[in-house]
This record gives sequence, C-alpha cells and structure tokens, in this order.
Amino acid sequence: MPIPSTFIPTRRALLVFAAVNMLGLTAPEAQTQTDPLPSWNDGAAKTRIIDFVQRVTRQAGPDFVPIEDRIATFDNDGTLWTEQPNYVQAEFVEARARELANANPELAGRQPFKALLSGDRATLAALGEQGIADLMIATHSGMTTTAFEKSVSDWLATARHPRFNRPYTELIYQPMVELLTYLRANGFKTFIVSGGGVEFMRPWTEKAYGIPPEQVIGSSGKTSYRLEGDTPVIEKLPTVEFVDDGSGKPLGINRFIGRRPVFAAGNSDGDLQMLQWTTLNTGPRFALIVHHTDVEREYAYDRQSQIGRLDKALDEAPKRGWLVVDMKRDWKTIYKP
Amino acid sequence: MPIPSTFIPTRRALLVFAAVNMLGLTAPEAQTQTDPLPSWNDGAAKTRIIDFVQRVTRQAGPDFVPIEDRIATFDNDGTLWTEQPNYVQAEFVEARARELANANPELAGRQPFKALLSGDRATLAALGEQGIADLMIATHSGMTTTAFEKSVSDWLATARHPRFNRPYTELIYQPMVELLTYLRANGFKTFIVSGGGVEFMRPWTEKAYGIPPEQVIGSSGKTSYRLEGDTPVIEKLPTVEFVDDGSGKPLGINRFIGRRPVFAAGNSDGDLQMLQWTTLNTGPRFALIVHHTDVEREYAYDRQSQIGRLDKALDEAPKRGWLVVDMKRDWKTIYKP
Repeated sequence: MPIPSTFIPTRRALLVFAAVNMLGLTAPEAQTQTDPLPSWNDGAAKTRIIDFVQRVTRQAGPDFVPIEDRIATFDNDGTLWTEQPNYVQAEFVEARARELANANPELAGRQPFKALLSGDRATLAALGEQGIADLMIATHSGMTTTAFEKSVSDWLATARHPRFNRPYTELIYQPMVELLTYLRANGFKTFIVSGGGVEFMRPWTEKAYGIPPEQVIGSSGKTSYRLEGDTPVIEKLPTVEFVDDGSGKPLGINRFIGRRPVFAAGNSDGDLQMLQWTTLNTGPRFALIVHHTDVEREYAYDRQSQIGRLDKALDEAPKRGWLVVDMKRDWKTIYKP
Repeated sequence: MPIPSTFIPTRRALLVFAAVNMLGLTAPEAQTQTDPLPSWNDGAAKTRIIDFVQRVTRQAGPDFVPIEDRIATFDNDGTLWTEQPNYVQAEFVEARARELANANPELAGRQPFKALLSGDRATLAALGEQGIADLMIATHSGMTTTAFEKSVSDWLATARHPRFNRPYTELIYQPMVELLTYLRANGFKTFIVSGGGVEFMRPWTEKAYGIPPEQVIGSSGKTSYRLEGDTPVIEKLPTVEFVDDGSGKPLGINRFIGRRPVFAAGNSDGDLQMLQWTTLNTGPRFALIVHHTDVEREYAYDRQSQIGRLDKALDEAPKRGWLVVDMKRDWKTIYKP
C-alpha cells in the first residue's frame, strides 16, 4: 500500500501529530483495538506473532527494536502464494515456450521443447538441469526488460490455476497478506526474498502484497545496457547471474538489504539458511515456517515433495524456536473469497 | 534521518493529520516558507531544482509524479563527498595494506605492496589493473562481512583528509545533503548508486546522508555463507561480482531498484549511462552534474582528470538538458563548517 501522495511525513507533520496526541485530540477509532490478523484462528501461532510485534515495538521494553532495524523478509512460493502443483513461474515458462514454438515450428521438434510441450515428463526429467536451463534461457532472455515485464503481465492477466481456476495473483494467502500489513503498520520494512526470478515478481508484487519493486530480491540473469538511437534499453542475457535460494538467500539479503532481518518467513529447505541468518543473532528475532497441511483447501506436502520440500528446516525448527504454522489448524481463511 | 520509532504512519495517523489540517490546527512553523536549499546561491541552478520538485509534486499539475515513482539516485564519489586527491576507498586500501604488511613483513617486500607502501607510483601504474585487483583482493576479502564493516568504521574514525585535515565523513557536500533532505521531504526515495564498494559505504551512509543500507548500491565481491557452530557468517571471497560503474549503473538500478529514477545526480563519465537511463524516458525527469570548478574551496577538474573524469557527460549535458552545477558559482557553502 503506497502512502497517499498527499501525505508527506515531514518533521513538521511528525510534530503536529505528536502535539495532537498529547492534546488527546485523536479520532475516536484511534482508541479501538481491532484484530490485526482476522484470517488467523485464535491460538498459539497468532498469539506468538502478536506478542513478538508488541515486544519489539514497546519503546521502554527490554526487547525494543529501533524502527530502522525492523527488517522482515518473506519467501514467496509456498509462503505468500500457492506453489502446487507447479511453481507459477514454471507454468509461465511452459506458456512462453508454447508461444515461441508456435512462432517457430522448428523449435517444437527440438528438445527440451518437444518433451515440455508434449507433456513428456520422463524425457524432460532425463534432460535434467541442462534441459531446465535451456528452457529458462529461451523464455527469459534475448529481449529487453520492458518486453519481458509486459509478457509477464500479459500472461498473468489470462492464466488460471488448474485446480482453483482463478488467476494466480488471487491465490495469495490472505493470512500472510494480513501479516505483512500488520508488520508494516508497526514500522517494519517488508521484503520478498525468493528463489523465483526477480523480474518475474516485480510487475505484480506491489499490488498483491504492498511490496514495491525495490524490496523484491530474487534470482536473476545477467543484463546489458545500450542506447538505441536516443532510447536506452536493458537486455536480458542468457547467463545466470544469481540464484537466490538456500545459502543464496542470506547472501542476497546481505547484498540487497545490508542488514540482518529480525523477522523471516519461509516454507521449505530453500529458506533454511535465511531463517538461520535471521534468528541466530542477538536480540529478539522471529522465524516462521508455513507448513502445508491442508489437502482440502490447498495442498498437504513436506518431506518428500518435489516442490517446496520441507525436511531439514522442519527438523531444525523446534531446536531454534521457529514457529511452524499449521495451515489447516491456524488459518481461518486461505484465499480471499 | 530515520523516522522516530514512536511515529508509525498508519491510516489512523493519516486521518488525524488530515483532520488537524482541516481544522487549521497546524503549528505556526507549518505556515513559514523556509529556504530548503540554504547552502545554494540564488540563481538558475537552485531555481531549476525547486521548480522541478514543485512541478512533480503538484497533484493536479501536468507533471505530477505519484509518490511511489519518486526515485532519486546519487553517485557518491565527487557527487556527495570529495574524491580528490584520491578516492577515499583507495586511501582505505593503502591503510589496510600497510596494516597487513606490518603483521606480515614478507608481504611488504612483494608487489604490488612494495610499490604502494613505498609510494612508488610509477611501478604501481606499471602493474596495471592486475596490481589494483591484487590490492583490492588482499584488503577486501578473506574476512567476514562483520569484520570488514568494523575495519571500515575503525579506519574512518581516525583517518584524515591530507589537505583539509578532517574526517572524510565531514567532507560531504552540504548543498547535496540539503538536496537529499529536500527530495525526501517531497516524497522521494533517495539511493546511492556508486562505483565504490557497497560494503565500504553502508557503515556510514545513514548517518552522513540519511540513506539506509538497503538504499545503497555499489560494486561488490562474491560472498559465501556457512554456519560456524551456531553462528552464521558471510565471508568475502576474492572474486569480483559486480562493477557498478558506467553501463553497470543502469544495470545496478534495474537489478536493485527495479524501476527507473526520475532524478539522478553524478559528476563524471562513470555516471553518463545512469543519467541517460534516468532522463531518456517519458514524463518529467531531472539530471544534474556536479562540476568541480572551485580550486580554492575544493578542487577544479574535469576532462583530463585521472579521478572523476568528466568529458563525454559534459558534452552530452546541453543536448540532454542536464543541469551542470558550477560548484564555485552555485554553492554558498561546500562543507559544514
């Protein structure tokens, strides 16, 4: 949620605000305590989150964290939106590959396109990492960043989830959106730290989560800059630059944010090191794992999953005091109706 | 300037603020028009800056820019602080190399250390880029990010500029600090985009400029993550990851910010592509070049300079409508007294 442009928090505004508070002139609703997490069921998970936020924002308390240090990092796939039966970006790759093959039929007969487009998962798996890399390169490079952004937005506008038949951007977890909003209302700066492509996420994260492009960290490819006449363009090159997963997450946080989070949320072993980097530090720290336990309303998966495998992090959670959120038990609502 | 932690701009606060404004309860100083750029002499440069800011913030006007798009990027060396007679980071490299050689006398006899520490500039120049790279690697890697940060802070606390005999962090340009503050007071988010090392800048930019670590973009080396017992560490590796200079600046802006600035400031050809990327776009855009013309109060240099060479960008400025700030003419004060 960007702050309305008419409001600029100058020192003057802050003084006026402080003065009004002292005069007891606050509006009546300022006194009302509303539930900041209405889509969370009452219980230990919700209580722990609210307790943490109250402790770190209580200025005179022993766990107070200055506002500039209130950094919160969130994984995206499986933590903020549904990642089953496929990563959304994988669906995008398939759609883009189909588009490319339609425009260039010769491509449709070549691997790995042939296997992908005929649904031949065995051959695709046999092509391994090189096959995936070839598909990523074909669908994510050789165009300008502007053209790529448009292709993402265009695809998201029409693509539908195979089970829920809704746009992917509607399959974001309402309890996590409330958590992001609640943290921001308490002075936290919220970031996405995802293995997904940074340029795949930025076109829609502000609208979906209230997280602006400059607070989205993800995997990326190399780029190049040139002037075309008087028009500068940035082109996406067929080379991996950074993989923001596993150990890459603390490295990405260090590179992009430059200070350690006090709050982090993930859902898989790809988030393990981010949760360590956040919590194995002095002062109050909070980590949360979204555990997918709800086969009825979403999906149920953890240790043996191909996507979003949660194994080591689940074992480490009790030892580190990380909150494991049981989706079925702790969430009243999964998606906005 | 971090916002005081007691102030959290919730919707409630915004409503109260709006109500107070309507009631005419604003403090007396809210009515006063004070000069936002007191260290700038009156004249065309100052007028153009203020005119631009007024135009993009006038909600009903044709040049209005929504607050979330008000991105401003600033080079550091020579734009926000003095870069003569040497880049400050080069002074740090020399001091660190001396420290290393003291601890390990064998090193003092080896190149490029020998040339650097004996002041033999000719030999150092002959060793070329490899010599510089060896010095950067020796002084900037093989330690944790925490240890490096401490070494930067420790050095800055005692190092003095050879001519002005003041800490380097006092040799920041007061007119530019005012400009940063003025832009932020008008809803701009200010970033540093510098060829300097990101981890060399982050320890002090918040205090010096009000720019937090996550809004500092710079050159970087690769890093690795590991757990030492229960302590996670990030180590700086002897490999260049990203050079944030020249064409690297728009690429860094694209990677770290993900949207194009509407305001950019630089002082050398290393900023040329950033100024192009900012201004060669639709809508109101502003670019500024700090031209070092003041041999008395600071330094005078441009086309033939070894450091901060301003040649192509100076030629391109009139064609692109970039403001060339004449330090001698336009700045009333250079440094805070």
